[in-house]
Amino acid sequence: MGVSLKDVAQRAGVSIKTVSNVVNNYQHVTPKMRARVQQAIDELGYRPNLTARHLRKGRTGIIALAVPEFGNPYFAELAGEVVDAAARHDYTVLVDHTAGQREKELLVCQGFRSHVIDGLILSPIHLETEDLMARTETAPLVLLGEREYEAPYDHIAIDNVAAAREAVAHLIALGHRRIAFLGSRTGRERQPAHLRLRGWREELAASGIAPDESLVVVTDGYGREDGAAAMASLLDRGERPDAVFAYNDMIATGAMRTITERGLTIPGDIAVVGFDDIEESRYGATTLTTIAPDKSAIARLAVDSLVERLAGTPVAEPRRPRPGHRLVVRESTAPRAPATPSEAAGPPR
Amino acid sequence: MGVSLKDVAQRAGVSIKTVSNVVNNYQHVTPKMRARVQQAIDELGYRPNLTARHLRKGRTGIIALAVPEFGNPYFAELAGEVVDAAARHDYTVLVDHTAGQREKELLVCQGFRSHVIDGLILSPIHLETEDLMARTETAPLVLLGEREYEAPYDHIAIDNVAAAREAVAHLIALGHRRIAFLGSRTGRERQPAHLRLRGWREELAASGIAPDESLVVVTDGYGREDGAAAMASLLDRGERPDAVFAYNDMIATGAMRTITERGLTIPGDIAVVGFDDIEESRYGATTLTTIAPDKSAIARLAVDSLVERLAGTPVAEPRRPRPGHRLVVRESTAPRAPATPSEAAGPPR
Repeated sequence: MGVSLKDVAQRAGVSIKTVSNVVNNYQHVTPKMRARVQQAIDELGYRPNLTARHLRKGRTGIIALAVPEFGNPYFAELAGEVVDAAARHDYTVLVDHTAGQREKELLVCQGFRSHVIDGLILSPIHLETEDLMARTETAPLVLLGEREYEAPYDHIAIDNVAAAREAVAHLIALGHRRIAFLGSRTGRERQPAHLRLRGWREELAASGIAPDESLVVVTDGYGREDGAAAMASLLDRGERPDAVFAYNDMIATGAMRTITERGLTIPGDIAVVGFDDIEESRYGATTLTTIAPDKSAIARLAVDSLVERLAGTPVAEPRRPRPGHRLVVRESTAPRAPATPSEAAGPPR
Repeated sequence: MGVSLKDVAQRAGVSIKTVSNVVNNYQHVTPKMRARVQQAIDELGYRPNLTARHLRKGRTGIIALAVPEFGNPYFAELAGEVVDAAARHDYTVLVDHTAGQREKELLVCQGFRSHVIDGLILSPIHLETEDLMARTETAPLVLLGEREYEAPYDHIAIDNVAAAREAVAHLIALGHRRIAFLGSRTGRERQPAHLRLRGWREELAASGIAPDESLVVVTDGYGREDGAAAMASLLDRGERPDAVFAYNDMIATGAMRTITERGLTIPGDIAVVGFDDIEESRYGATTLTTIAPDKSAIARLAVDSLVERLAGTPVAEPRRPRPGHRLVVRESTAPRAPATPSEAAGPPR
């Protein structure tokens, strides 16, 4: 009870200044010294008074993470990782949601609530480069997500084109040719098309398969209901793809539900690949093959960037690190079934 | 651009004081006057300067919602509702997670971060009544969740015993008799057993079925992996229930995955009922019958209680409102299949 910096310094046999440097995560402490102080901290159960410490620096000790929606498990899982990463820098995280509305994205970007937050990590959907260039708020901002911006802010995102190409290459290697894409953006964005759709096009073309744009279904949103509706519209048009590559796992989940409802099997009739590797994808009746972004790395890089900007590192060149990703193969993909006699003979007349 | 209170007052033909009363949600404004002012606000696009307003009152305009985990979609969906309910009172919400750790629950309860929040909505797992009685922090606190406390705080929770009884009654009405319960608390709590398990016991007993405690499987946590493991342990022991009632949808989802992996069918071999009505339960290959708590009502009651306490209403008698719930019947439950000849003849030797 009531362990002080002084107690820790005595136990570790170092100066109070050194303990303070360790506790404040200053860089100029040797790893050996850091370990020695940390041991004393652990043994004594010292807990720095974070609030007081941040307030002395004119800070609140809080960073905000603004995501499009709490209901998307990808963002919920990412938020957990950001909380953990921030805790390592003694920051706590305010999670905010923009409801996928441009108006709310502008509001958080422009510093709404800036009296209680030191910096912001934002995953935008609708913001444009001009919006970011018009930003007057001075609190540090780090961007997440697949949108591309020409703006002077650090931006953490996996290589979405490469990841999408791996997903499509996996399907092609299994013998699939008619591969649908579900989840293209609507026309509200000026961006030509998003990166995952570009990956789909590029990988098909590279494999000598002309991308069939009639197999691209534009969804309104990013949810399960959007995936279910997109798959239904595809089947209703008489299109019967070999496989589906979905923008995210939620759209994939909705599509799988529709496939099942239509009496078709996964992967026998239609193989499915998602994107995000949310936990539920490991537990369905048919587990989902998906692209797993390294969520820990994304969170760590975002928090590290923000903390460095908070420490005053000027943004000479905005950083664009590329956290990793991997294809996780599960039950929803399998080699293409050989053509049935009726299929080989063409549709019945 | 720059619409003021005065502009709104002129447009509505009322005093600035009246506009201020409406904007501040004071009670002593007639509905008619409120509508008139609101119309002027909407027409002019007036946006009150919330930050300044809260700061004048010595507040930050932020309330915290502390939940056990972001990764549980029930809490993500509830958080969305709380954000909406708080916005109606011009409050924004900081979402915090306690990682289901007693230590962190104590921390938020004791006012960690209270320099930036006006009040707290907390869904505890491990806190005891004594912990709440020992609380010295004066910021208002409203409790959520199924734990029962004898403490002077408002507590918003559905009638968990009644809801569990409805779930079990549904299974009994379908002809099921051997009904397992997955998800009992571990022994760390001094509480005898939680309310949903009590509902399971009571409904079975009321229907003349002796509750078979060998069909209760204690899980470590509340996740999909816990449900999968619990179901596996039940089947590994040679128990083959007619039906499963799970503590929540995530445990139900894990159990369904195990049932499928063992080559059994849902609901043909084993019917499953969950609790929470999270969105993914509507999209599985077999949609899940579940208890749907009224999440909007829970959020609204919690925020309303907190706002009233913030306005200075003394806690004469802590409130225990009971938001509603309903049983949602989907594909995972069906009438019990008639005994097969082999079953009627007993297991093969």
